[in-house]
This record gives sequence, C-alpha cells and structure tokens, in this order.
Amino acid sequence: MGSGMARNLLRAGHELTVYNRTPKKAEALAAEGVRAAASPAEAARGAETVHSMLADDDAVHQVVFGQDGIASTMAPDAVHVSHSTISTALARELAAAGHAYVSAPVFGRPDAAEKKQLIVIAAGAAGHLSRCRPLFDAIGLQTVIAGSKPWQANAVKLCGNFMLASMLEAFGEACAVLRKAEVDPHVFLDAMNGLFASPVYANYGGMVADERFEPAGFTVKLGLKDADLALAAAEECGAPMPMASLVRDRLMAALANGQGSMDWSSVARVSAREAGL
Amino acid sequence: MGSGMARNLLRAGHELTVYNRTPKKAEALAAEGVRAAASPAEAARGAETVHSMLADDDAVHQVVFGQDGIASTMAPDAVHVSHSTISTALARELAAAGHAYVSAPVFGRPDAAEKKQLIVIAAGAAGHLSRCRPLFDAIGLQTVIAGSKPWQANAVKLCGNFMLASMLEAFGEACAVLRKAEVDPHVFLDAMNGLFASPVYANYGGMVADERFEPAGFTVKLGLKDADLALAAAEECGAPMPMASLVRDRLMAALANGQGSMDWSSVARVSAREAGL
Amino acid sequence: MGSGMARNLLRAGHELTVYNRTPKKAEALAAEGVRAAASPAEAARGAETVHSMLADDDAVHQVVFGQDGIASTMAPDAVHVSHSTISTALARELAAAGHAYVSAPVFGRPDAAEKKQLIVIAAGAAGHLSRCRPLFDAIGLQTVIAGSKPWQANAVKLCGNFMLASMLEAFGEACAVLRKAEVDPHVFLDAMNGLFASPVYANYGGMVADERFEPAGFTVKLGLKDADLALAAAEECGAPMPMASLVRDRLMAALANGQGSMDWSSVARVSAREAGL
Amino acid sequence: MGSGMARNLLRAGHELTVYNRTPKKAEALAAEGVRAAASPAEAARGAETVHSMLADDDAVHQVVFGQDGIASTMAPDAVHVSHSTISTALARELAAAGHAYVSAPVFGRPDAAEKKQLIVIAAGAAGHLSRCRPLFDAIGLQTVIAGSKPWQANAVKLCGNFMLASMLEAFGEACAVLRKAEVDPHVFLDAMNGLFASPVYANYGGMVADERFEPAGFTVKLGLKDADLALAAAEECGAPMPMASLVRDRLMAALANGQGSMDWSSVARVSAREAGL
Repeated sequence: MGSGMARNLLRAGHELTVYNRTPKKAEALAAEGVRAAASPAEAARGAETVHSMLADDDAVHQVVFGQDGIASTMAPDAVHVSHSTISTALARELAAAGHAYVSAPVFGRPDAAEKKQLIVIAAGAAGHLSRCRPLFDAIGLQTVIAGSKPWQANAVKLCGNFMLASMLEAFGEACAVLRKAEVDPHVFLDAMNGLFASPVYANYGGMVADERFEPAGFTVKLGLKDADLALAAAEECGAPMPMASLVRDRLMAALANGQGSMDWSSVARVSAREAGL
Repeated sequence: MGSGMARNLLRAGHELTVYNRTPKKAEALAAEGVRAAASPAEAARGAETVHSMLADDDAVHQVVFGQDGIASTMAPDAVHVSHSTISTALARELAAAGHAYVSAPVFGRPDAAEKKQLIVIAAGAAGHLSRCRPLFDAIGLQTVIAGSKPWQANAVKLCGNFMLASMLEAFGEACAVLRKAEVDPHVFLDAMNGLFASPVYANYGGMVADERFEPAGFTVKLGLKDADLALAAAEECGAPMPMASLVRDRLMAALANGQGSMDWSSVARVSAREAGL
Repeated sequence: MGSGMARNLLRAGHELTVYNRTPKKAEALAAEGVRAAASPAEAARGAETVHSMLADDDAVHQVVFGQDGIASTMAPDAVHVSHSTISTALARELAAAGHAYVSAPVFGRPDAAEKKQLIVIAAGAAGHLSRCRPLFDAIGLQTVIAGSKPWQANAVKLCGNFMLASMLEAFGEACAVLRKAEVDPHVFLDAMNGLFASPVYANYGGMVADERFEPAGFTVKLGLKDADLALAAAEECGAPMPMASLVRDRLMAALANGQGSMDWSSVARVSAREAGL
Repeated sequence: MGSGMARNLLRAGHELTVYNRTPKKAEALAAEGVRAAASPAEAARGAETVHSMLADDDAVHQVVFGQDGIASTMAPDAVHVSHSTISTALARELAAAGHAYVSAPVFGRPDAAEKKQLIVIAAGAAGHLSRCRPLFDAIGLQTVIAGSKPWQANAVKLCGNFMLASMLEAFGEACAVLRKAEVDPHVFLDAMNGLFASPVYANYGGMVADERFEPAGFTVKLGLKDADLALAAAEECGAPMPMASLVRDRLMAALANGQGSMDWSSVARVSAREAGL
C-alpha cells in the first residue's frame, strides 16, 4: 500500500523521505527520487507531515512510541497522519500523545493505491485536515471527512470493513444453500451482478463462486482482527452489532480450520462445512 | 408489478388477456389493447402461457387451484409461468400439479418492470424454458437460468432477497454505532457509495441515513415473509443460514414494534433502539 | 412414552383401550388388562377421554382426522387430550375441530413416564381441565396449568424444550473452548454440577463430556423439529427468539453432518468442528 | 466476598492479615482477630500465601504491580492465590511475573462465601496446589482442579459464567414469547423448576418472572465484562462461541438502555422490548 501512496505523493510534487522495515521496498522508491531513511525517527525528522501505513496496532505503537520512533523526532508543528486500520482506542491515544494527529484510513487495495483510486476517510481538527487535504487529494479519488475527532475516521473505516465482511458471509451462506439445491453458484453470481451492479460484489462473489481463495487479497486473519476492532469500537460507543458478532465468529471458525492465510472470502467454507458439503 | 410486465409483453407483440382482483387495474390495461377477464379461469382459457404475479403463497394457491382457478381451464399444452416470490415447497407443488410449469421470479421494483429492467430468474424443463425465453426477453433486461427444476429459481430469488436484507441489517448496525460515535450517517453513506459503487447501496443506504422509511418500497412484513421462505428453503436443502436467522429476528422485532408497513430498511430502527438511540 | 402413561392410568383404576401402530406394543399392555383396538377410531369409540401421544404434527393429524381417525367415533361429550409435542397451530386446529380438546404435553423420558414422574403442562377450558385432572395426577408428578387456550400449553412445552436445547448448545461451546484450552470437559462438568445442582445438567453434561451420543435419548432430528415449532410459535406471538434461531441453526448443521439420529446433545460436535477439533 | 472467605480461613485456624481499600471492612474483621494492613504490600509481607479477591483486571494489576503492590514485598517462596474473575491473559501475566501463582476463582455469592459454600476452581503447578488445598477446603464446599496452568481455572470460571448468562437470555426469550401468548411467566417458572430442579433456575427464573431486577446480585455491567472476557479467552484458544456473542450483544443492549446497574437477569428486558412489550 505504502509504495503506491508514496508514488502519488511524489507525482503531486511533494518531497518524501521513506522508511520501511524491508529496506528493498524503500530502495525501490529511492530510484524514483524518494529519500530512504534508516529508521522512523530519521524519516520523521524535519517533516511537515508524517504518514504511517502499517499492519496493526502493535506496529503503529512501535513506530510511533518505540525506540527510534517518530515521536522522538517530529517537529512541534508537524502532523502525524495515520492511514493504518487501527483501533479507535489507539487513535485516541495517538491524538493525546502531544503531536498534531489526523486519522486517515483508506479503502482500496495496493493496485488502487498505485492508481490513485483510494477512498480516504479523514478525521481530526479542522486546521489539520485543511493542511492535509492536498495530500489526500494526491493519493485518493475521494476524501470523506468523518469528523473532528481522529478516532471517528477509524470507526467509519471499521464499519466499512464490516460491510464487506457481512457481504462475504451472506454470499457464503447463499452459495452453500444453492450448491445443496444443485444450483451453480455462478448463476447466483450473475443474478447478484445484475441486482447490485457493484464491482465489489463481482470481485468477491467471483472468488466465492470459484472457491478461489488463494492467493489472498486480504486474509482471514486480518479480517478477524478488523472484526474484533469493529466490535471493540461498537462497545466503546455502546451499540451492539449482532451481525458483526456473527461475522467474527465465522472468521474465527475459518481460522481454527486452517484458513488463516486464505482470502477472507473463504469464510464461505464455514457455511459449506456446516451444510455438510 | 403486473402492469409493467403486461405492457412490455404487449409492446413485444404478444396478445394478452389479463385478470386482476382489482378490476380497475385490468381496465387501465384494457385501454391499451389488453383483454380483461372476469376470473383467472377465464384469463387462462386458450392461452399458450399463463403468467401469474401475486403477493404470496396463499394468493398463488388460490389463483391456481381455487374456484375459477387457472388449473380448471388451462390447455393441456399450456405453460404456467409463476413470477411471484413464493416458497420452494409451493413451486414443487405447482410443478407436480399436472400442467407444464416454469418458475420465473424477478428482481426489480414496479418502475423497473415498466422500464423493462427486471432481472428474470427462470427454472424449469429445457423445452418449457425455450418456449418462454422470448417472453422473458420482453419483460426483462437479463434472464438467468437457474436449473431444470422450477423451485431452483425460487431458491435463487429468495437468496437474492436475503442478500438485500443482510445489507440492510449491516447498514442499520453500522449507522447505529456511528450515530453514537457522533458521525453523520451520510458521511458513512458517501464512503459506502465510494466503496461499493452500487445503486442498491445508494438507494437503501440513503433511506437508512435519512431515516426515511415511508412510503415503503417493500414492507417489513413482506421482508419477514421472504426471510421465512429463505430459511424454509435452506432447511429443505439442509443448510443453516445464521445470517438469515439474524435478519429474520430483526425484521420480526421491527414488526413487533409497529413497523410492519414501513420499508424493510427500517430494520435499522431495531439497531438504533438496542443502542439506546 | 405411551406405555408408561397407560400403565399408570391402569394402576389408578381407569379402564383403557389402546391403539398402537406397532401391534406388539398394544399386545404387551393387553396382558396387563388393557383392551387393544385395531384402529384409533375403535379405540376412541365410547371413551370419556381420548389420549394421543404421537411423534409429530403429521401423525396427530392422521390419527385424528385421517381414515379410521378418532374424530369419526368420539362421543359428543368426550375430551381429546393430546400429549404430543405439536405446533401451536395444530393445537388451535384441534381445538376448533368440534370435540372438547385439551393440550397436555409432558416433560420427561419414557422411564419417567413409567415411574409416574412426568411434568404435565395442561391448557384448555376450565371444565375440561377439571375433568382431566385425575388423569394428569395419575400419570405425572406435577401438573402445571398454562391457561384456558389449549395451544398455550404447547407454547410452554416448546419453550421448555428450547431451554434444554440452549443448555446443550452452551455446554457444547464451553467444552469446545475448554478442550482447546486442554482442560478436561469432565472438570467443567464437575464445576457445573456444583453450580447448577441439576440432574438435567448432570445427565446431558455427562453425554457432552463423554462425547457419548448414541444411543439417542432424543434425536437431533426431533430437536430440530421442536426448534422449528418453537420459532413458529414465537413468530405467531410476534416475539423474536435469537437464541432459538441459533440453536436451530446448530441442530441443522448437526443434521447436515450426518448426526440426525444421534442424541441432540451431539450438537456439541458442531462447536467442536468449528474450533478445528 | 472477601470478608466471608477471610472469616472461614480464620475459623480453620489460619492467621490472617487483611487489606481492603475501604478501611471499615478490614476493621470489622480486625475485631474477629484478623490483622489489618495499610496497603497490599504490607499485607503480603511475610505471608506464606497471598490471596486477592478484586473486581476486575485493572484492580488486580494495581494491587499486584502498582505502588505498594504485593509483588514488592512477597517472600520468594510465597504463593499468590488470585480468586478474582479475571482475563486468562492477566492470569498468564501473573504466572509469568516471578512469584508462585495459582488461579482460584470461585462460584458463589457473598452469602455462599460466608457459609463456606463456594465452589473453588483452581489451577497451577501441582506443588502449589497441594500447598493451597487446605485453604480451598477452608473456604469452599468443593474444589475442582482445572489443570496445571493457572489461566485454565480462569477459562473454566468464565465458561461457567457464560452458562449462567445463557440461561438468563434463554429465560428472557421464553418469557417474552409466553407473555405475548398470555401465559403467566410464573407458570413457566413452575414448569422449569420441575424440569431442571436447580436452585439457580429457581432463583434467576423468579427474578425474570417477577421482573424484579433491583437490587442487583450481579450487575449487567459486570456480566458484560465477563462475557467479553469469555470471548477473549475463546479467541485465544481458537474457538468461536456464537451463543456467548449473542449473550454479549444482549447485555450490551441492556447497558445501552440504562440497565447497567440492574441485575444481569434484566437482560430479559431486551427480549421484552424486541417483542414490543
């Protein structure tokens, strides 16, 4: 993800210093005019905005507060922009940590990042958002402002991932029934493409109908992590999400049955197994 | 629904005799060149294909097997084409009743029927399907053949309605959380429109974000009926559908709280109430 | 079940005529002084009260309204007492069928029936109930009057079976977690016996801990039938039962995985499979 | 809880030093021959075993690792015995913290603690358990050994609380249906007392039937905390618990509707509201 976003920032005329745990990734960008740093701290030094795009809460925590973390070198007036899908709790911690902070998680896969087709969900203080706006425009197709508190953007992102996961579970259940009814799931996919006319349904529905779960675009493991984060955010807000609970349980069943590294659309296999398929 | 379908059959050059419980509806069509009949039996007499489009299993049963029903007058080589969203059990009963029978339920609202934009899901014997094909082409944008057993089309249709209902429940849960997070649901709708790029999400998501549940496009009551039918079909096939069970329970909670005649997207109110909103 | 009930009625001094589909069962009772009849109609002729104890709605319907059914010979002032676990809908139909009717389903296994330890749940008109009271006292330990409408007793019985099924599902989930935690389920059973001090927990918990699901005391198939009836009763009343929906889905998964004839406590295997055990 | 446990340890001839955040509670015990300490550290100094009985993970963490915590003064060969209902994660942390550690959560209310009727679930190294055995015998009716890893006892305790919560939700759903069926919930309670013959069903079923949720024996808030802990433990073990998810969602709905300080049996109100009662 980070590479595509970096390239689009570069194309928009911004100067970049990049740090990646895997030095080769940073080097590839270096050839295109990006400065490579040896640590997050070094990358953050002197920057106006510091963008982080990482796998999970632990990685973000480490990169911000850990040894050689960005918190140790950020300029007093710099803004930390976190694009990672993290918990609302960590977003609040980052917002309270002393530096200007904006949450700006994105929807879209690495190829969408390359093509500048991300959807950016941003939240933070109005002044910080307006400073970052050109950066969001540089990396995405659309920017949605969720509110003035950074964690609100994370809540929206987590709810969006929940919408995707729900669709996957629904597809899986329908296809299990239809396979037992001796209806080809591709027939159902045709009908759903007609009904929803959504590239997301076409893409994921195709994976479920084909039972093609590897290589993973987004793994069961990550899907489960996000379902946990959505439920945690909902609990903080005081709202039950029974469908999210169901989705979480199904992803956990997938994980417990050896599907952790498969695409999260393989949650369909849980429904298939329960139907005796 | 029936009016739009009849008009498109007429436009395609077919001769029609129409029966409607509400005579005015048939009369409106009569002005356009359709013959009005005084009973289903009279409408079916001498027809090559007999189309029925009715509210539920009981209505179909009555119109087929009841007094003055179509079974009493259909020609031996005529085909009964049932467009209604009925149970797979009734579809099997109709298929076993003596006349050629095709299930051809449709996706789409009355305005889609008028505009010839229905998606037709058809199943039946190959010979019957090929005879009916021009008729499906006349009323719809797309015809999906589900299989050789008529009830298979009903299974597909019920699973499709389940996909819609799941999406509504998911929207409702997400919006309840986000409202408690002080995020405007329209912000979430913007993000989902970006993510799914589906007119169905745009339409229903708008109703949920606006909390605009009347007038109903499709009522909670009908949604609950279809959820029951989906679960019954799944049980016949031997496949659990936990998400369909959840959706059914939520529609039932909506019904029990006076929302029976509201749009089924008002299931979002169940989530709102549980969140203390 | 019927044999034990018949013997206790006999011991209480009542005269009995018995019909059973399997003649041997009736013959065994004949040796003890019971008259055997060749058909339900013959058994019902001249009786003051006619008791039926059958497997399901279809069997009851057949024995009452079918050829040689009891409805054809019952005396005008006789009471039909149905002990079967049937739908509330059929109970209403029986109550409307012309003869005095009382629903009196029972809790307890065949051995409890032999030992006069059934719990009788009875509902019907006060006059009918008082006439039947000595009969209930003859077959059971306790009689609970549910109301004046016969179907109310069936609603109570179905809710009671739901309580049992919920306990089984809960045991199954807990034991799956604990087996993965390398805790012997018998340890958990000890704790639950201490906590609940209930023979029902001891009995079913033992089956789950031992994974001893055959021979079945009550099959998955019958458990699923009753879960369906509970949900149907709840829908008629306008009350969602999400836990009953869950239980039904799990029993269906058990059935689809070849456990239809095992004890319904084998629903624990669904949880075990989902946990990758 | 702690007072009753302390008194029974005293009666069994043990010497006790006690610390309580609320000095009065410790003083009451002081009159009975117990030494009162001014801090956890002081209470732990020189003790052979150090017992903690606290509200939640945070409180335990503070009392062990906080300023003046027991970790600062415990003798090298002393055993920390934690009776609190805490997360399996914290139990693992305590076990890894340097001192001998045993988890020994208990089932039972304060009055059961006074009457020496607790059920103690203990886990830890065999040597530690045998040292603690007389202490468990002094405070409880029954000791169940869950395994050699302390967190296993916490898993059993959390699963036991889940069994209770499931029963409450089941009662609530059944009573909502039956109230809509115009059956008095006390009738159902009578039947369930006959069926389960469990004091726990009698007690909680009575609260649900009476709709008597205050004063709370155990609050919705604490019930939700424990449901969260059970789900977290299950996720660590890799086992989905859909019924626990349901129970958690319902407790959250209760909390969001102002029932946080009511007894957790008031979860029945969620079912009642959904049924339009």
